[in-house]
Amino acid sequence: MKIEDLKQLRDETGIGMMDCKRALAEANGDIERAKEILREQGLEMMNEQEQRPVREGRVEVYAHHTHKVGVMVDIACNTDFAAKSAEFLTFSSDVALHIAAEAPLYVSPEDVPADVLDADLAEFRKTLEEQGKPAEIIEKAVEGRANRYYKDNCLIKQPFVKDPDVTIEDLLADLRTKTGENIFVRRFARFAIEAEEE
Amino acid sequence: MKIEDLKQLRDETGIGMMDCKRALAEANGDIERAKEILREQGLEMMNEQEQRPVREGRVEVYAHHTHKVGVMVDIACNTDFAAKSAEFLTFSSDVALHIAAEAPLYVSPEDVPADVLDADLAEFRKTLEEQGKPAEIIEKAVEGRANRYYKDNCLIKQPFVKDPDVTIEDLLADLRTKTGENIFVRRFARFAIEAEEE
Repeated sequence: MKIEDLKQLRDETGIGMMDCKRALAEANGDIERAKEILREQGLEMMNEQEQRPVREGRVEVYAHHTHKVGVMVDIACNTDFAAKSAEFLTFSSDVALHIAAEAPLYVSPEDVPADVLDADLAEFRKTLEEQGKPAEIIEKAVEGRANRYYKDNCLIKQPFVKDPDVTIEDLLADLRTKTGENIFVRRFARFAIEAEEE
Repeated sequence: MKIEDLKQLRDETGIGMMDCKRALAEANGDIERAKEILREQGLEMMNEQEQRPVREGRVEVYAHHTHKVGVMVDIACNTDFAAKSAEFLTFSSDVALHIAAEAPLYVSPEDVPADVLDADLAEFRKTLEEQGKPAEIIEKAVEGRANRYYKDNCLIKQPFVKDPDVTIEDLLADLRTKTGENIFVRRFARFAIEAEEE
């Protein structure tokens, strides 16, 4: 099984890693067959989920026991039934705790304003070009630099504080599989009592 | 005792209404004498408080039992001692509840972006001018319209949801008096699960 195929299957279905891995193994690495297997097993595909309105959800709040740090996070899903499920509550409380600890700035890479990263990447690219690096190497290096920024600052790309082997995005994918709903973090806020903190 | 004098004394000292009223009565309406009385009683003046760093405070969080509405509020003060006082905790929890119920948009009138209110007031003023109203009447009417907007949208100007006879500003002034510290609401966030709500 190729890692790229697993990634593609996950991206295209929005289904959790474990289920995708199993389906891909069962399908002998055939992505389209793996999708059929997932569908047969009643695991809903992301593109099917996205047709449904995402108006339900839960606002989770968390305050550190000192009350010097607080977090509020808005997690969206399709139905109130899912919003009240044990899996959803666990994810909500985990992600609030994670935000308190890791202080991400954005939910996802798409939320990073262009002017924050673009100038830095352009300068980095220029430096590499001046060093005469091959175009292919430059592309990879620039992509790597962007990905490091996302991992440091974007919630869904961060390694989960309680289990750094998985990202918040992985947790979300698993939650989508378990609930059969399109679930995402809509927004969050983190306040800290410190003159120097935002 | 003139209401304007009471207001001036409160604005200049940052001390709660009840103490100012008492001091002003004792001073037979002399504002400077009333300030001396307040100072003699150990009630700290706002301008003295403002010299001290305001880096301490508390982040309060509140979620409605349905978790469809959540609030987070950052309340600043001079010392952690004050931040841990019973009065401060009561205010924190009251103001979080208030924000959940009343959904203000800004902390105070100074936070309202100019473009939100200015165009509306300018148009209102123009209409009154076209109606040939006297300048004095127009000034009062425009001020009244601005104040109504602040009362509807600015936290500190709103009547407290649990006791509409006092505003959040009044509660803050009383809290300043009780704790002898400069206390203010630095920022808040309110999330609601509703497609049509912000």
